[in-house]
Amino acid sequence: MSKISGIAASAGIAVARAFILEHPDYTITKTAAADVEAEIAKLTDALEKSKAELQSIKERTLAELGEKKAEIFESHLLILDDPELISPVMDKIREEMVNADYALNEVATQFIEMFENMKSAYLQERAADMRDVTKRVLNHLLGIHYVSPAEIREEVIVIAQDLTPSDTAQLNRNFVKGFTTNIGGRTSHSAIMARSLEIPAVVGTKNVLSEVKAGDLVIVDGLSGDVLINPSDAEVAEYKAKQAAYDLQIAEWKKLRDEPTVSADGKHVELAANIGTPNDVNGVIDNGGEGVGLYRTEFLYMGRDKLPSEEIQYNAYRTVLENMKGKPVVVRTLDIGGDKELPYLDLPKEMNPFLGFRAIRLCLDRQDIFRTQLRALLRASAHGDLRIMFPMIATLGEFRAARDLLLEEKAKLREEGKEVSDSIQLGIMVEIPSTAVLADQFAKEVDFFSIGTNDLIQYTMAADRMNEQVSYLYQPYNPAILRLIKIVIDAAHAQGKWTGMCGEMAGDSTAIPLLLGLGLDEFSMSATSILPARSQISKLSAAEMKEMAAKALQLSTAEEVAALVQSSVQ
Amino acid sequence: MSKISGIAASAGIAVARAFILEHPDYTITKTAAADVEAEIAKLTDALEKSKAELQSIKERTLAELGEKKAEIFESHLLILDDPELISPVMDKIREEMVNADYALNEVATQFIEMFENMKSAYLQERAADMRDVTKRVLNHLLGIHYVSPAEIREEVIVIAQDLTPSDTAQLNRNFVKGFTTNIGGRTSHSAIMARSLEIPAVVGTKNVLSEVKAGDLVIVDGLSGDVLINPSDAEVAEYKAKQAAYDLQIAEWKKLRDEPTVSADGKHVELAANIGTPNDVNGVIDNGGEGVGLYRTEFLYMGRDKLPSEEIQYNAYRTVLENMKGKPVVVRTLDIGGDKELPYLDLPKEMNPFLGFRAIRLCLDRQDIFRTQLRALLRASAHGDLRIMFPMIATLGEFRAARDLLLEEKAKLREEGKEVSDSIQLGIMVEIPSTAVLADQFAKEVDFFSIGTNDLIQYTMAADRMNEQVSYLYQPYNPAILRLIKIVIDAAHAQGKWTGMCGEMAGDSTAIPLLLGLGLDEFSMSATSILPARSQISKLSAAEMKEMAAKALQLSTAEEVAALVQSSVQ
Repeated sequence: MSKISGIAASAGIAVARAFILEHPDYTITKTAAADVEAEIAKLTDALEKSKAELQSIKERTLAELGEKKAEIFESHLLILDDPELISPVMDKIREEMVNADYALNEVATQFIEMFENMKSAYLQERAADMRDVTKRVLNHLLGIHYVSPAEIREEVIVIAQDLTPSDTAQLNRNFVKGFTTNIGGRTSHSAIMARSLEIPAVVGTKNVLSEVKAGDLVIVDGLSGDVLINPSDAEVAEYKAKQAAYDLQIAEWKKLRDEPTVSADGKHVELAANIGTPNDVNGVIDNGGEGVGLYRTEFLYMGRDKLPSEEIQYNAYRTVLENMKGKPVVVRTLDIGGDKELPYLDLPKEMNPFLGFRAIRLCLDRQDIFRTQLRALLRASAHGDLRIMFPMIATLGEFRAARDLLLEEKAKLREEGKEVSDSIQLGIMVEIPSTAVLADQFAKEVDFFSIGTNDLIQYTMAADRMNEQVSYLYQPYNPAILRLIKIVIDAAHAQGKWTGMCGEMAGDSTAIPLLLGLGLDEFSMSATSILPARSQISKLSAAEMKEMAAKALQLSTAEEVAALVQSSVQ
Repeated sequence: MSKISGIAASAGIAVARAFILEHPDYTITKTAAADVEAEIAKLTDALEKSKAELQSIKERTLAELGEKKAEIFESHLLILDDPELISPVMDKIREEMVNADYALNEVATQFIEMFENMKSAYLQERAADMRDVTKRVLNHLLGIHYVSPAEIREEVIVIAQDLTPSDTAQLNRNFVKGFTTNIGGRTSHSAIMARSLEIPAVVGTKNVLSEVKAGDLVIVDGLSGDVLINPSDAEVAEYKAKQAAYDLQIAEWKKLRDEPTVSADGKHVELAANIGTPNDVNGVIDNGGEGVGLYRTEFLYMGRDKLPSEEIQYNAYRTVLENMKGKPVVVRTLDIGGDKELPYLDLPKEMNPFLGFRAIRLCLDRQDIFRTQLRALLRASAHGDLRIMFPMIATLGEFRAARDLLLEEKAKLREEGKEVSDSIQLGIMVEIPSTAVLADQFAKEVDFFSIGTNDLIQYTMAADRMNEQVSYLYQPYNPAILRLIKIVIDAAHAQGKWTGMCGEMAGDSTAIPLLLGLGLDEFSMSATSILPARSQISKLSAAEMKEMAAKALQLSTAEEVAALVQSSVQ
């Protein structure tokens, strides 16, 4: 047995065999083919193997996930039977006397580029299909053994350098019991997704990928951050017992599912969840969320070849609102840029993307994108309690410009005879220091604030939260951060508005007593953190926490604040 | 005539012929030499031309700048006569039958790498010499006509894509009458250097390099930001008249050189200068600076192959202190990283360098570098009124750690019997929002604050000040920025400490009335801004500005603040 430590990113314990997720290298070299017919035979063989593979995936998907999901594989099969693709490849091998993989790649790339350049959405999707199918045939030609995360059909623990948002979106929680990565932190996207999928995860191990071989037995302990490789039977038993104890505590928490969130001395607050897709709503309901405090709409824009249409967005927003059955849903408008890129937008490379052209800055410039999203949101507002918030607001000018676009689209929709709610709350993310400092001015014009601590801390401390060399400066308990939070909450209350928080800090058990004491109205967190938080708050006195928070604001370092919380809450 | 507009970066008007500064491309290709003796002849010819060139530069430098500066060219001449270098190049051409430039580059690179790998400082400097000489010979072999900025000996206007710090350091203000670049802003390094050298400059023109040909007559108007290409005689006369009027105003200002800085109602403040090298002190004295408010020590670390020794640093700091004759000198410890790289430190590439491992963060980690600088500073303290400040302080923990290292080195020096002043003030840059917000806690432990507005604005607004797509967010007059400045000043005064400002904002004529009203004690700026600022302050009532500043703090946008200042100050 060997043990590696990383960052506990999603609670729970998983025991399963390792599945190594690596993106293969498709570098293709042109070589002269000595035996042309042998290349043709290799191609034919690779095509047959790919078809057999697709046939089997199609049947399995049909049985497990239904007709709709299986359709894609049917269209992949059709591509492999299309003489318009295959004949030119055969011709190229014969005429140019080159290797099969080179010929296939050349011809396929031509088709892909042709499809991509056409303005038809249908043909652009064909380009994506063609790309997938080409890779599958190349796997056989190049001897690459690659299984995409979507195809995993046995219980595994995924081991990877990192997981991209599209990798995570493809994970099937019925089979992926846990995952562990070399890089990332508690607030990286893969960690957030793991908590939302309730998959135990350990990230930032630095070297798990080189330590684990495919098929090794692995324990991922998302409570402690440990990863055990090829543990003994005794160790497996020990961790299963730990899992059982954890399950017991969860059962305790589950009793609070339909209860309100009330402190020991009777102060009510609201516990909401952060979600990324309509599918996450089940987890919110299961975990007793009183609303959605942050719906990240970026995932709608990812994993596709072009911008999502108004209709696609409308359906997603409406689904979330309907499934939340009248509970509030705060939707954040597009926050793209920074570490979140969209290949089809072709944004310029920036020297400091976290201080760059992103979120509302991009949306105010690319009004075509923004107006489409606003229309979809406004139309969905008829189906629930919608609240809209703008990300990365740094000045009142930006807020006013964004609000005016919303009002314009609302007026247009009404003219078109579409139904739009009259009670949509309009708020902003407070994640830039200037906005926190000027919160009293903003509070006159917005309906609510939601403090985004991940970015607020990063900018207030001038430290990239993804950069390990300055990670010591990512200090949620720094008194400067607490003072900014207090300014925001007090400014909202002075105008009769409310303040939420949707950064990772809102679900942190050391921060919760401070935030309760500072008067935070809404805490939005990973759905799985809600019940532990409700349990914790039920044991705290809001009045005592208010006194403690006042003391914390006068301390000089984060360490002193953490020590104060430890000594006050026991 | 054609006209281009850019950013007025350094005041004044210059009229001269264009000098295009482009760094040549030294890509060298190996080719088979059909006629080996012709290659040998080309090499010999290039060597002779290079020697003649060096001989003439040496003589001119000797006459104009003295023996010390001419020595370098003597040693370059010796390299060209060294058979240990030249013979192997000849051999390589003959034996391998290759082109002369390839042979020279191969042999020279071997020597350079050998020298660089030796631990001797002397030999490492030889590597730099060898590199310079090789480039000079390659210029002749490759037909490149390159004149380094140091060799300019006629009156010109330099036209460039951008100027690196090392380019600017080589500019001779006797010959370079002005410069203009495609990129950069008012706070880029080349702009700051231009103001310090008092060379008119227009930056950020986007296309001046493609519009101007070498030898074109060019007018650079550093007052309006205009660049005129091949102006008519009438236009030249008009701009010369404009220059004369500007000279007249400067003469007015010069009368204030030895006066104190006092507002119309009798409030004293201090006007100091930002400098980069000991040479800049002349400009400070000439412009009536009451001290040095920011000595950027980075230039000591640039343009060399290794870290500067304690002795090199001690001499620089001592020179500045002695030449300032008892006036205060605030030295900022090393602020490297971000956009300022040191090749020999081999720092990791970062995704967001402005939020990365830089300045005090690096110095607390690389204590060898930091302790050397602290020792040099402590030893220099015996020669004037030294004040030390740490850059990029985000937490009290960092300040305490840096202070403790300073106290350790002080104790060691005393043990060694070295003289160290007992009255060194110790302060910090306030350029990170967390430190501004927590200024009351810092004020208990530091002797002074210096607000670095360039970075403070960048972090508070979360907008990279070098990124043109978000430059609209670089808002010095945003009420959030003014509030942070007020917090810092009030916190210092509550503890009987003083606050300065060393960002570009301190010399801005719209900001000065606000800063006077907020109670700023020291304004540190480009030396050339001091007299205009003294003149402006002498006409302002500090009491009225205090009322105006109080109003500005309650406004909601930067535009409203600018309008308030315009209407209050006439």
